[in-house]
Amino acid sequence: MFAQIDTPAVLIDLDVAEANIRKFQAHCDHHGLKLRPHIKTHKLPMLAQAQIAAGAIGITCQKISEAEAMISEGGISDVLITFNIIGAGKLKRLRRLADKVTLSVVADNRSVADGLSGAFADAQTPLDVLVECDTGAGRCGVTSPEEAAGLADYIDGLAGLRFAGLMTYPPVGADQKVQRWLNEAVDALANCGLKASVISNGGSPGMWQAQNVSIATEYRIGTYIYNDRSLQVRGVCDWADCALTVLATVISVPAHDRAVIDCGTKVLTSDLLGLNGNGHVLGRPDITIAGLSEEHGVLTADNINLAVGSRIRIVPNHACVVSNMLDQVILVRGDTCIGPQSVTARGKVW
Amino acid sequence: MFAQIDTPAVLIDLDVAEANIRKFQAHCDHHGLKLRPHIKTHKLPMLAQAQIAAGAIGITCQKISEAEAMISEGGISDVLITFNIIGAGKLKRLRRLADKVTLSVVADNRSVADGLSGAFADAQTPLDVLVECDTGAGRCGVTSPEEAAGLADYIDGLAGLRFAGLMTYPPVGADQKVQRWLNEAVDALANCGLKASVISNGGSPGMWQAQNVSIATEYRIGTYIYNDRSLQVRGVCDWADCALTVLATVISVPAHDRAVIDCGTKVLTSDLLGLNGNGHVLGRPDITIAGLSEEHGVLTADNINLAVGSRIRIVPNHACVVSNMLDQVILVRGDTCIGPQSVTARGKVW
Repeated sequence: MFAQIDTPAVLIDLDVAEANIRKFQAHCDHHGLKLRPHIKTHKLPMLAQAQIAAGAIGITCQKISEAEAMISEGGISDVLITFNIIGAGKLKRLRRLADKVTLSVVADNRSVADGLSGAFADAQTPLDVLVECDTGAGRCGVTSPEEAAGLADYIDGLAGLRFAGLMTYPPVGADQKVQRWLNEAVDALANCGLKASVISNGGSPGMWQAQNVSIATEYRIGTYIYNDRSLQVRGVCDWADCALTVLATVISVPAHDRAVIDCGTKVLTSDLLGLNGNGHVLGRPDITIAGLSEEHGVLTADNINLAVGSRIRIVPNHACVVSNMLDQVILVRGDTCIGPQSVTARGKVW
Repeated sequence: MFAQIDTPAVLIDLDVAEANIRKFQAHCDHHGLKLRPHIKTHKLPMLAQAQIAAGAIGITCQKISEAEAMISEGGISDVLITFNIIGAGKLKRLRRLADKVTLSVVADNRSVADGLSGAFADAQTPLDVLVECDTGAGRCGVTSPEEAAGLADYIDGLAGLRFAGLMTYPPVGADQKVQRWLNEAVDALANCGLKASVISNGGSPGMWQAQNVSIATEYRIGTYIYNDRSLQVRGVCDWADCALTVLATVISVPAHDRAVIDCGTKVLTSDLLGLNGNGHVLGRPDITIAGLSEEHGVLTADNINLAVGSRIRIVPNHACVVSNMLDQVILVRGDTCIGPQSVTARGKVW
C-alpha cells in the first residue's frame, strides 16, 4: 500500500475531499444556507479555492495568520475571523487584511470592540463585527440575548465599526435551543433599532441538520471536507467518506495480541473527542489503538495478526488537529499517489 | 509580562534549563551513571550542545530525522536511536549517519535486525545494536530475559552488526523488577557467551532514583531539562524548575467563574498524562484549565478575577509535546527576553 511513501504519513484523498465539498454544498444550496467553510481542517489554499469554486461565499479562520496564508497563496477574497482579536500587533495586521479582502470579525466584549475601533477609526470602510453568542457551548460568547443586543449597540456606536450580525458555535444537538436563543437576540436587537444581516451558525457534528436553525443565514464548518472517526462514530459519515488517513508501519509485534506502529501523538495527537482509543484501523475494526506516546502507537486485538513491516491506514479521531502536525501531507486519488503538498497554514497561532 | 512577545508563545528560560542540566548531570556523576539525554524535549541543537558540554556522553533520538538535525546543526558526535528502523529509505539514511558519528540503534525482533544487517553488511565498522527489553511498560521490547539473549545472539551472528547491550524504557516505580529483569538477561547472555557493554535505562519520572537500577550503565532522559506539570505533580521538581512555559492572553471573561485564553491544543496539546486539567497557571493554583479546543482554552475558578487582555503563564502537562507544536520558541532568562529560536527538530517523524 503506497510503498513509495515513507511512514508515518498523512494522506489526503482528493477524490473523497472533493466529493465531500460537493455533497455539503448541495445540502446548503438546497436549504438556502450560505456556506463559509473553516479552513482549519485542511490549512491548504488549494482546498479553500475548491470550496469557493463549489459555491462557498468565503472562508472562516480563527487566526489572522491563517487568513494571511489563505489570502496570499489562495487568493481568497472574503474572510470571517471567528476570534476576539487583541493587541496592537494583531490589530495592525487585521487592518492590513481589510485593505485586501472583504473582512469580518467577531467580538464578545467591549474591550475587544474598543481595540477594533482604535485600529479602524480612520478606515474608509468600517469593519463588520459580529457579536459572538454563547448558545450553550460554554466557550466564548455573550451569555444572553439581551447582552448580545447591548454589545451590538455598543459596537455600532464605535468609530470604524459596523454591527454586522450574530455568530455562534453551538453545542451539539441543541438546535431548538439555539434557534430560540438567536430569535430572542434578533428581537432584542430590533428593540435597539438594529438588524443582524448575518447570522452565522456552524459545526460538523450537526451538519446534516444545519437547516433546523432556520434563523441562520450561513453555516461555518471545517471537518466535513475530510471527516474523521468522531464523525463516523456519531453517524455523520461513513469510513469511505474519510479523506484524511494516516499511513503507518508496524515496527514490532511483541505478543500475539499487541503490535506497535511508528506513529504516535506527533501525528495522531492525543485528541479523544470523547472516544475510546486513538483512531480506527481501516479494514481491522477488531483492533484498538490502545495507547500513544510521541512516536509509538500500541495496537491491541484478540489476535493482532500483523507482521513487522506491514502497513496500516488509520482514520484519526480528529482530522483537523492531525493536519497541524506535519509540514506536509501526501495527496492521493484512490490508490494513485499524486505527491507531497506543504501545509501552508500549519502551526499558525498568531 | 513580556509585553513585546505576541501570544500564544512558548517561552524557554535558559537559566532554569541550564540549572536542570547541571543538577541531573551532578546526580549521575555522583552515582557513576553515564547520561545520554533524549533531545525530543527541546529539539534544539544548542541545548544538546549544552548537555554534552555539561558531561553527557551523547544523545538519544527516536527518529533518524531528529539525529540528522542534531548532527548537522549541533555537531553532536554520539547518537543512540531508540527505535526499530524499518524500510530501505530509512536504512540508507542510517548508514549515512554511521559514517558521520558514533551510532547505535535498537532492535526488538529479527526482521528489524535483518534489515539493519542488510544495510551494514559491507560497512567497515559494524553497527552497534542494543536489544530493546520490555521490563513492564508494554510498548516495544522483547518480553523475557531469555528472548533478549536469543535475539542478542542472533544479532551478533549477522553481518555488519555487533551486539552492544540492552535498552529499556521501564514502567514508573518498578526499579526492583527492572533490576531483576536485566540481571536475568545478563545471566542469559553469559550463557550464550555474550556481554552487554551498555545497559541503557531511562525515564524522567524516576530520575532521582536512577541509581536504584544499579546494573544500568547509562540513563536516557528527556523532560528533565524543561520539567513540566506531570513531574511537579509527581514530586520530581518544583514549579521554579519548569523552564518551558506558555504565555497566553485572556481574550474573554464571559462569567465570574470562567475566562478564555488564546491558547488551545495547537500549543498545549491534549496530553493529560493522567492529570485533570490541561496545565498549571503560575501564581493561580485556584484556576483549572478545564477544556481546550484548537485555539481556545477555557479557565475556571470560583472567582476567575482576570481581565480581558491580561496575560498568564502556564506550565503544560507535558513539555516535550509542546516543543513540537510551534516553529519557534522564545528564549528568555528570568524576566529578560533574549529572542526567538527556531525549533530545528520540530515535526521530525521519519
